Amino acid sequence: MKVAVLGFGTVGVGVWDMLEKAPGFERGLVLVRAGKENEPFKVSSMEAICNDKSIDAVAEVMGGVEPAFTYVSMALKAGKHVVTSNKALVAAKGIELNKLALENNVSFLFSAACGGAVPFLHNLSLAALDDEIESLGGILNGTTNFMLDSMQSEGMDYAEALSIAQKLGYAEADPTADVSGMDALRKIMLACAVAYDKLPVDGFAREGIESITAADVNDFKAMGLTCRLVTSGGEAGESVYAYVEPVLFSAGAAECSVLKNFNMAKYYGKNSGSIVYIGQGAGRYPTASAVIRDLYCIGGVPMFKPSVREVVADNSAAIHPYYVRCSASDKAAFDFESSRADGDVVCGVVKPCSVSKMHADAKAIRDRGGEIFFAAMEN
Amino acid sequence: MKVAVLGFGTVGVGVWDMLEKAPGFERGLVLVRAGKENEPFKVSSMEAICNDKSIDAVAEVMGGVEPAFTYVSMALKAGKHVVTSNKALVAAKGIELNKLALENNVSFLFSAACGGAVPFLHNLSLAALDDEIESLGGILNGTTNFMLDSMQSEGMDYAEALSIAQKLGYAEADPTADVSGMDALRKIMLACAVAYDKLPVDGFAREGIESITAADVNDFKAMGLTCRLVTSGGEAGESVYAYVEPVLFSAGAAECSVLKNFNMAKYYGKNSGSIVYIGQGAGRYPTASAVIRDLYCIGGVPMFKPSVREVVADNSAAIHPYYVRCSASDKAAFDFESSRADGDVVCGVVKPCSVSKMHADAKAIRDRGGEIFFAAMEN
Repeated sequence: MKVAVLGFGTVGVGVWDMLEKAPGFERGLVLVRAGKENEPFKVSSMEAICNDKSIDAVAEVMGGVEPAFTYVSMALKAGKHVVTSNKALVAAKGIELNKLALENNVSFLFSAACGGAVPFLHNLSLAALDDEIESLGGILNGTTNFMLDSMQSEGMDYAEALSIAQKLGYAEADPTADVSGMDALRKIMLACAVAYDKLPVDGFAREGIESITAADVNDFKAMGLTCRLVTSGGEAGESVYAYVEPVLFSAGAAECSVLKNFNMAKYYGKNSGSIVYIGQGAGRYPTASAVIRDLYCIGGVPMFKPSVREVVADNSAAIHPYYVRCSASDKAAFDFESSRADGDVVCGVVKPCSVSKMHADAKAIRDRGGEIFFAAMEN
Repeated sequence: MKVAVLGFGTVGVGVWDMLEKAPGFERGLVLVRAGKENEPFKVSSMEAICNDKSIDAVAEVMGGVEPAFTYVSMALKAGKHVVTSNKALVAAKGIELNKLALENNVSFLFSAACGGAVPFLHNLSLAALDDEIESLGGILNGTTNFMLDSMQSEGMDYAEALSIAQKLGYAEADPTADVSGMDALRKIMLACAVAYDKLPVDGFAREGIESITAADVNDFKAMGLTCRLVTSGGEAGESVYAYVEPVLFSAGAAECSVLKNFNMAKYYGKNSGSIVYIGQGAGRYPTASAVIRDLYCIGGVPMFKPSVREVVADNSAAIHPYYVRCSASDKAAFDFESSRADGDVVCGVVKPCSVSKMHADAKAIRDRGGEIFFAAMEN
C-alpha cells in the first residue's frame, strides 16, 4: 500500500521516517506549502496526490480544520483511505468525512487524534462492537499534566510550569487550547462518538487549569491529594455527558502515578471491566506510531459507525463533591460541607452537586468579576 | 461469520453469551464432553464441527494442551479460523498451530491468553510491525497480585490470602501454576514470540511468591515498598531474556496502584515510548471480551509471523540489585550492600547481579535444604 503524507511538520516527518521501514507500505508523496517543494517527493498540489493512482492511502497530519478538511475530502472522493491525527478536524467535520469514506468504500481512522501513542480509540472502537461502555475518559492532555506535575513535584508556580512546558515543546506559544481544556474536550468528543455513536457538539462543561495557583497545589499536597485535569464521558439517556475539569485524587490512585506529559485513557466495559492505557500523548514518534497503527488497520473495524450523529451533551446527572476556593463574599453561592477562611479567601469541600451546576455557578462568579478555583473530588 | 465454541466452562459460557449480541457473528455449535450434550447446540464430536461448512471460526476456551491441540489442529485443517484463550496450548504448540493456520490461509489469534481483558498481545502485534520493542512484561498474573495486595493492605498471611483467593475463584484448588510463576511465564513466552519472533522454550528464570511471608511484607511496608510478581522480557542478542520474579517498588510507581486481581502489561517501543495497559486479567466476561475482540480481528494482522522460532532464553545480561532474606549461614553466598540480622535470619540489599546468577544461587541454597526469599529492587 502506497501512502501520501499531508504535512511535514513534527508528526509528518515522524510518519515519513516510520513508513520507510514499515512492512507492507511504500512511501508516496508529501504535501507541503507552495515554495517548500525542495525534494522530489514533495508537492504543493493536492490534485497531484489525488490523481496519482498508485497512492492508496493518505495520512493527514497538518492540524487545523482548513485546509485539512478540503484536502481530506478530496482524498476520500478520490478513493483513498484516510488516517489522521487531527482532532480539531474530526471533532468539527468527522461525521461528514465518515460519510464520504463510506460512499467511497474506504477507511477513515483517527486514533492518533486522541492520546498520541496510547491506543485508546482503536481499542475503544473494538470494545464498543460488543460491550457496553459504561464510562470513558481520563487524563487526555499531556501539556496540562506536565504543568500540574511540575507544580506538585517541583514546587513551580503556574507561569514557571507553563514556560518550561513551552521550552520543552509540550505547550504552544499560545497555550490556550491546552490550559483551557479545549484540547481534552475535543478528544472526549471523539471518544463519545466512537463508543456511543453520538458526537457531542454543544452543552459541554469545560474547566481548564488556568485558575490553579501554587498555593492551591501546596494545600492539596498537605491534604495528600494530587490534582489532574480529567476528561469524562458516558451515556446520559438519549445524549451523553462530556466534561473536562480538575480532579483531586488521593494517594494510591492510578492517576497520581501519571507523571510529566503522559496521558492515561480509560473506559469501563460492562464485560471487560475497567481498561486503562498509559503512554505518551504527543511527540513526533509516539504520534507517528499511532498513525502507522491506523494504516495497518485499514479495511478493519471502522471508528465511526454510519449511524453516528450529533447530540447536545447533558452534564446534569453527573454528580460529585467539589473542592472550591473562592472569595468570602461568594461563599454563600455554595453548600460547603467544611471550609476554612484565610483572610478574604474561603476554601473547602462542597456537598455533591451536578457538573452542570458547578460549572454554571463558577461562570456566574467570574462573569461578575470574581475569582474561583474548583476541582472535583475523586469518586 | 458463524462461530463454534470449544468448551463450555467459565470462559466458554461468557463467549457464548457475548456472541449472541455481537454484530456480524452468529452462534454455531458448542463442543462439550460426551454425555453433556443436553441442548441442541451442544455436540461432543469435533468432527461434527469440522464438517459443518457453515462454521467459519472456532473459539477454543477449554484450557490444557490436550485434547485442545488435537481439536484446534482439526479446525485449522478444516479451514476454520481459530481464536484461543489457552496459554498452555500456545506456549507448547503455538508455532506448529501457526504453521497449520498459514497453510490453510486462516487466522490464529490468542490475545485472550495473556492479560484477559487487557488488550496486550493484540496491540503488541500491531506495534511490533513497525516499532522496535525494547522491553515488555508487567504484572501478568491476577491470582498472585490479589494475594500480594491482600497481604499488604489487609495484613493477611500467605495461607489466608491464598484461601480467600480460592474462595473468590481467583485461584484454583491446586494453585501451583499461579504461585510458582508458571502462568506468568507462559504469558511472557507468548509476548516474546509476538514481539521478537522468538518463542523462548527453555533457559527461564522463574521465582513465584511461595517464599514470601507476612513478616517480609511488613518489612517492605515499613520501608515504603510494595511487592509485585513481575514478568520481564526483551531481546538478548540472538535470543531473548524472559523471567518472572517478585519486584519491590517504591511509592508512586504505577505498579503500586495495581490492586486486587488486576493485571498491568506494558511494552516500551522505540517510537511509541512506554505503553501501559491495566485491567482484569481473568474472569468470565473479561476473558470472553478478549476472545470476541480477536474474532473481530480475524483476517487482520497475524500474531505470530511465519518466521517465529524457538530459542533458549538468556537471562545473564539482565542485572538488578536484589533484596534477599536468608539464613545467617547462607549470608556469604551474597554480596550484601547493607543488611540486618534478626536472630538466625539476615535480610538486606545485595549488589546488582544478573537474574540468572540470583536465581541459580537461590536454587543452590534450596537444594541443600536452606530457605531464601528474594525480590528485585525496581530499576
